[in-house]
Amino acid sequence: MPEGSSTVALDGFGVEKGFDVLVAGVRKAAADGLKVRVFGPAAELSLVKVEGVTVVDTSESIGNDQDPVPAVRSRPEASIVRAVDDVKQGNSSAVVSLGSTGATMAAATFGLRRSLGVKRPALAAQIPLPGRSVLFLDVGANLDVRAQHLIQFAYLGASFSRSVLGVSNPSVGLLSVGEEAGKGRSDVVEAHAALSDSEEIDFIGNVEGRDIPAAVADVIVTDGFTGNIALKAMEGASRLVGDAITSAARSNLLSALGGLMMKPAMGGLRRELHPDTTGGAILLGLRNVTVVGHGSSGPDGVANAIRLAARAAAVDAPFLTEQMLHRVGANRGAIDSGDPA
Amino acid sequence: MPEGSSTVALDGFGVEKGFDVLVAGVRKAAADGLKVRVFGPAAELSLVKVEGVTVVDTSESIGNDQDPVPAVRSRPEASIVRAVDDVKQGNSSAVVSLGSTGATMAAATFGLRRSLGVKRPALAAQIPLPGRSVLFLDVGANLDVRAQHLIQFAYLGASFSRSVLGVSNPSVGLLSVGEEAGKGRSDVVEAHAALSDSEEIDFIGNVEGRDIPAAVADVIVTDGFTGNIALKAMEGASRLVGDAITSAARSNLLSALGGLMMKPAMGGLRRELHPDTTGGAILLGLRNVTVVGHGSSGPDGVANAIRLAARAAAVDAPFLTEQMLHRVGANRGAIDSGDPA
Repeated sequence: MPEGSSTVALDGFGVEKGFDVLVAGVRKAAADGLKVRVFGPAAELSLVKVEGVTVVDTSESIGNDQDPVPAVRSRPEASIVRAVDDVKQGNSSAVVSLGSTGATMAAATFGLRRSLGVKRPALAAQIPLPGRSVLFLDVGANLDVRAQHLIQFAYLGASFSRSVLGVSNPSVGLLSVGEEAGKGRSDVVEAHAALSDSEEIDFIGNVEGRDIPAAVADVIVTDGFTGNIALKAMEGASRLVGDAITSAARSNLLSALGGLMMKPAMGGLRRELHPDTTGGAILLGLRNVTVVGHGSSGPDGVANAIRLAARAAAVDAPFLTEQMLHRVGANRGAIDSGDPA
Repeated sequence: MPEGSSTVALDGFGVEKGFDVLVAGVRKAAADGLKVRVFGPAAELSLVKVEGVTVVDTSESIGNDQDPVPAVRSRPEASIVRAVDDVKQGNSSAVVSLGSTGATMAAATFGLRRSLGVKRPALAAQIPLPGRSVLFLDVGANLDVRAQHLIQFAYLGASFSRSVLGVSNPSVGLLSVGEEAGKGRSDVVEAHAALSDSEEIDFIGNVEGRDIPAAVADVIVTDGFTGNIALKAMEGASRLVGDAITSAARSNLLSALGGLMMKPAMGGLRRELHPDTTGGAILLGLRNVTVVGHGSSGPDGVANAIRLAARAAAVDAPFLTEQMLHRVGANRGAIDSGDPA
């Protein structure tokens, strides 16, 4: 296990509800015995004397409105860049940010080494659904992919699901426009054939768009363009239906009373679908796991993102992924040829 | 206006709720004065003596479970093939099916001529949303596209929205992973640049996945792989949230009573989001418009699909599209070069 394996470097900016929510989340994680190094404004972060927590005073941050790559390259003092640097220096072993996904991806991709055999890191979203959460990747790190990348994404996702999320034999689906093996773009058809032959994962074949919210598999794999759009489209559709129902409930007195009576039963659903219940998105394929929580997180969301990163570090998830890629040969041979990246 | 411009050829199979629902829908459309030629089992279709309606006795059909292309090629007597043939022979001027989308696309693509200058027909879905319906294309006809195809899809969609759906100056968005012009795959970035220069359409730039359910534009354009998956993912997410709320409403007596009291207010929402309120999907880019209604349609869904096809034929929508493509030069010159298709 690498040195500092239970220490998480946390970007102290980016929580939309303010520093107090971040602090409350860090306290929850620290109460579990986790070690956290927070890169944020010391004056705002009342974390002095919290056991296991160190604040490294940092005043700069990169916002959602900034172009990630140039921002990360030009601003070594920004909180996310310093948090990644902390891992590089061996003080921490995983990174967590609740801020800009783009900046976090850029900082981690530039600053951390790729796992042995990994061609392209991928961003995986944990989608909270009734019954189980689905690990959906790639949701934006790689807009153009070839079959070999899709194949690796399947292994990256399955390995993380098993070692960190605790799914003993994760099922893996490949997103396409039809269930049959021949349906889809040529890269998808090729990836399907390779994954069907794999003995290392439980490949259930192609799945369709509607199968994501239906949670038909533990891991669902696609390219970063399709994944990003499908994820946001689902979020938008859920919000639309939820809002429409809320507004229907407010349309007259009878409905309002009815809505009030339904409220307790709705609470469970809200908890199940709420982003706080899962740790957000995870950048897979680097030597150290990077977790990007939702900016809208409450204290539980912050704590869960830290817990997820700490768990990944504790089991050394990236090393387990390297071993799996080596076993299946997905890091070399036929799959390797012709790919300079 | 072409001969038989107000006559619609209807595939008499495919309505899941049975022939009586199809018959009820045809009667509604006929009551508007529309002419319909129905290709289905005469004995099941009680449409004798309905003015404007002809039944052409047809016993074969292609189901959702059959591989569309070989089925269409090998079965000239199947209802959808005969309906398309009827248009080819000049008896009807538009096709409607409530059956297999794949078989309908295949039959129309093989049987009907492409509009002048159109490289690839595209399947457009009418998504019913509160406030307005969004025309979303391509949702499955073209899995691999180049920039020039995306550009044409924008014109195909805008032209149909204006001439058939009655939107006077339809806004058009291009689906990508970020709003900035430089965000997205290279084909998307290239299409963005070309559409930005267009004076013929109101191009609002890139839109993201969440902007589809938010209905930020009248027409939203993407490739058929992404479009198919995003559409199904949104349908799945809406159903999930809707079902979860229904089940919450049934979880105890108080909730059930509350749900009952909210029911009248929910009716309006259900009407707004119900597939019956729009005509389904439309295959654009052929000399004759083809409409694919939802298999789950009720009588209104069937009637609306027929009305949509009849309106498209009456205004000769494909000819108007040809004119627009000619005006903008999107059917020749730079855009044409290098594309053998």
